[in-house]
Amino acid sequence: MPVFLDTRDPDFEERFRALLGTKREDSPDVDDTVAAIIADVRARGDAALIELTERFDRLRLTPETLAIGRDEVDAIIADVPEADRAALTLAAERIRAYHARQMPEDARWTDPEGATLGWRWTAVASAGLYVPGGIASYPSSVLMNAIPAKVAGVERLAICVPTPDGQVNPHVMLAARIAGVDEIYRVGGAQAIAALAYGTETIAPVDKITGPGNAYVAAAKRRVFGRVGIDMIAGPSEILVIADADNDPDWIALDLMSQAEHDKSAQSILVTDDAAFGRKVAEAVDARLQTLERRAVAGESWRDFGAVITVRDLDEAATLSDRIAPEHLELCVADPEALSARCRHAGAIFLGAWTPEAIGDYVGGPNHVLPTARSARFSSGLSVMDFVKRTTLAQMTPEALAAVGPAAERLARAESLEAHGLSVAARREKLNAPES
Amino acid sequence: MPVFLDTRDPDFEERFRALLGTKREDSPDVDDTVAAIIADVRARGDAALIELTERFDRLRLTPETLAIGRDEVDAIIADVPEADRAALTLAAERIRAYHARQMPEDARWTDPEGATLGWRWTAVASAGLYVPGGIASYPSSVLMNAIPAKVAGVERLAICVPTPDGQVNPHVMLAARIAGVDEIYRVGGAQAIAALAYGTETIAPVDKITGPGNAYVAAAKRRVFGRVGIDMIAGPSEILVIADADNDPDWIALDLMSQAEHDKSAQSILVTDDAAFGRKVAEAVDARLQTLERRAVAGESWRDFGAVITVRDLDEAATLSDRIAPEHLELCVADPEALSARCRHAGAIFLGAWTPEAIGDYVGGPNHVLPTARSARFSSGLSVMDFVKRTTLAQMTPEALAAVGPAAERLARAESLEAHGLSVAARREKLNAPES
Repeated sequence: MPVFLDTRDPDFEERFRALLGTKREDSPDVDDTVAAIIADVRARGDAALIELTERFDRLRLTPETLAIGRDEVDAIIADVPEADRAALTLAAERIRAYHARQMPEDARWTDPEGATLGWRWTAVASAGLYVPGGIASYPSSVLMNAIPAKVAGVERLAICVPTPDGQVNPHVMLAARIAGVDEIYRVGGAQAIAALAYGTETIAPVDKITGPGNAYVAAAKRRVFGRVGIDMIAGPSEILVIADADNDPDWIALDLMSQAEHDKSAQSILVTDDAAFGRKVAEAVDARLQTLERRAVAGESWRDFGAVITVRDLDEAATLSDRIAPEHLELCVADPEALSARCRHAGAIFLGAWTPEAIGDYVGGPNHVLPTARSARFSSGLSVMDFVKRTTLAQMTPEALAAVGPAAERLARAESLEAHGLSVAARREKLNAPES
Repeated sequence: MPVFLDTRDPDFEERFRALLGTKREDSPDVDDTVAAIIADVRARGDAALIELTERFDRLRLTPETLAIGRDEVDAIIADVPEADRAALTLAAERIRAYHARQMPEDARWTDPEGATLGWRWTAVASAGLYVPGGIASYPSSVLMNAIPAKVAGVERLAICVPTPDGQVNPHVMLAARIAGVDEIYRVGGAQAIAALAYGTETIAPVDKITGPGNAYVAAAKRRVFGRVGIDMIAGPSEILVIADADNDPDWIALDLMSQAEHDKSAQSILVTDDAAFGRKVAEAVDARLQTLERRAVAGESWRDFGAVITVRDLDEAATLSDRIAPEHLELCVADPEALSARCRHAGAIFLGAWTPEAIGDYVGGPNHVLPTARSARFSSGLSVMDFVKRTTLAQMTPEALAAVGPAAERLARAESLEAHGLSVAARREKLNAPES
C-alpha cells in the first residue's frame, strides 16, 4: 500500500520528511570493475571491446562488425510496421520543432568605454549517445537525445547500443535513422563509454556523452567526466500529480501507473485537496493493477514508494511540490496556469487534465530526459544547450584600456599578481609615450 | 626552457601530441579522507566544523563565531584603500553589466495542433561559493562567482572561506559585500563543501556550489555532486597567444607570464607565423623572469609547460588552437575578428593586442571562470546559466490530444509500456464517446 498523508495530521511533517528522504536506488559498488574495464579498453582498444562483448553479450564481433553499417540498418528497419514509422516520424518532427527554438543567440555590443564585448555559441563537434539494451531500450530516448544534438549542429553523432545475443531493436535503429545519427556500434556497458571517451582503432573518441544506462554505465560516465562532457546521471523516474476532485480517478490512476511501470524504484505521488478523491484514485490504481501487463513492476513501485497526500488547498500543494522538486509535475486542476506559476522547481510541467505525462514521453515536443531525485532544484532537462558551448569575446581599444586598465592594475596588485598588472601597464605606457 | 616546435618539422605531429598529452596536475588521492570528513560533518554538524577548523586552520570557533557577521565585515573592510574599493566597484559594475545580458528568456507558443508549449527559467534558490584561503584567495573570483548568481536571482548566497590562524582577507570581504553575498562562514576545505551540501545547525544547505579549491575541495565537490549542483572542477590555468611579428615581444611575454605566474602547473603557449618573433618573445620572457616577483612559479611553469610554436600561416594557427581548445585565447594579429571566426573551441577570446588577458581577469566584463584542460570542446565558462534552471511546459487541448495521441499510443506499445498508452487512450475514448 502507498502511504497516505494529510497535511492536517500532527505527524505530517515528520512523515513527509521521511518520504522525501526515502532512498529508492540500490547503487551497487561497481567502481573497481568499471575502472578495470576502462583501463582495458584504453590499453587494447577494439580487442578489448570484442572480448568484453563476447563475455557480456554472448556475441562474437570483429573490428569490421563492431559498427552496424548503413545497409544492415536498412535491412533491420524494413520490418518496422508503417504505423510505427509514422509515429516515430511525427514524434521526431515535434521534438525537432520544439528544440529548434532553444538555439541560443550570439551577442556583441560596444560599451560606453569603447570595449566590444559579447559571446558566441558553437556546437560540440562530436557526441556519443548510449542506448541501453533489453527492456529499457527505448526508441523515444534515441530521439530525445539525438535530435537536440543534431539541432545544435553536432557534426558527428555516434550511438553505442548493446545487442545481447545479436538481437538488435529495429525501432531503435529506425529512431537513429530518423534522428540523423551518423554511426552505430553494437557495444554496451562501461566498455562502450570507455570507447566513446578514449577512442579505439574503429571508434573515434567523442567530446560529449549522453544517455541513460545501468550502474556500470553510470559509473563509467562519472569516471570519464572531465575527459569528455556528460549529461546528468539519471536516477529512477518520478511523477507528482496535483489533482482536484473534478478529475476522472481512472485517468489520474493511469498517469501514476505510467510512471510506476517504468521501474520498481520509480515513484508516483498524488497530491489532492480532496481526501475522498485521493481514496478513489487509490482504488482505481488497485483496479488497474489487476490487469496491467507490467503490474508486477508497477505494483511494487506503487506499494513501496507511492504516496497520496491530502492538502488543505492548492497553495499548500505548490509548497509541497517545490520541496519535492519533481521530475514530472502534472497539474490537473481548474486553473493549471495559475498553479504552474506557483511551482518553481520541476523538470517538466504538464498543464491540465488533457495533458497526460505520457504525451511528454513521446510526442509533446519537450525533452523527456529530465532531472530526477530533487535535482530540478538546480538542473534542467536535456536540451540543445547540452550540445553547444559559449566562447566569450572581448576587444579593448587603446581608449578603453586607458579607462579600465588602472583598475585592473590595482586589483592585480591586491592579488600579488605582478605580471597581470604589468601586461596592462606596458600597454598603457605606450599610450602615454610621446608619438614617435 | 619551453619547447620550440615548428609545423614544418618532420616530427612536429609527434611532439605536438606529446604537448597536448602532457599531464600538468598531480591529483593526490584524497578521496578517503574527504569521505570521512563529509561523513563527520553530516553526523555531527557544527561540532565537526569547529573541530576540523581548529585542526586545519588553528582557529577556535563556536557556533556563534562560525559566521562572519555584518559588523565584523564592516570593521574588516574599513581598512581597504579607497583606490582598491573603487577598482573592485568598477570591476563589479562591468561584470554585472555583462552578465545581465545573459539572462535567458522564457518562451511560450501554440503549435498548429493546438498544443501550447514552452519553457520557463527560474533561479536556483540558494548557492554556496567556496573561496580558497591563502595565496589563491582572489577577490576577483568572488565577484566572478557571486555576481552571476545574484544576477540570476539567487535569493541566498553563502560564502565559505578558510581563515587560517584567523587571518581574513579584507579584499575578499569587500568583494563579497559589493557582490551582495548574504552569508559568510570562516570554514574551509572538504568540511565547508559538506556543510554547504548537507547543512549543519548553523549553515543551511544550498542547492548549488561553485568556486575553485584545492584537491580536497575538488574531491568533496565531486562527492556531493547530485545532492547539489556543482560547477566544473577547474584544472590549472592556460593561455594560448597567437601573435604575428607586428607585436611588441615584451607585451606578449608579459601576457604569457601573467598566466605562468598563477601556478607552476599553468601553461602558456605562443603560436606565431614568424620564428624570429617567437625567439624574441622567448628572450623577453627570460628578461622578465629576472625580476618578476613570482619568477620562481612563473619560471617553473614556463620551463616545464611553456611552448613556442611556429606555423606556416594563421590558418594553421587556428587549426592548432582548436586542437588545444585553450581556456584563454589571445589573438594579437592584424585582423583578430577574422581569425576569431576560425577558432571554434576556446573558453574566452581576447581580440587584438590592446586586450591583454589580464583585462579579462578583472574588468573586461566576461567571466574569468573558464573551462580548462581542453574542456572548452564541450563546456563553457561560468555564467548566469549556471544559476538558473529550465522547466518545460506543455498543455494539450482535446483536439491536440486527438491529433498526436494515437502516435503516442503506438510508441508506448512499441516500448511495452501499456499504462503510458492507456493514459492517452482513456482520454481519447472520452472524446469519442457520445456527449452525455
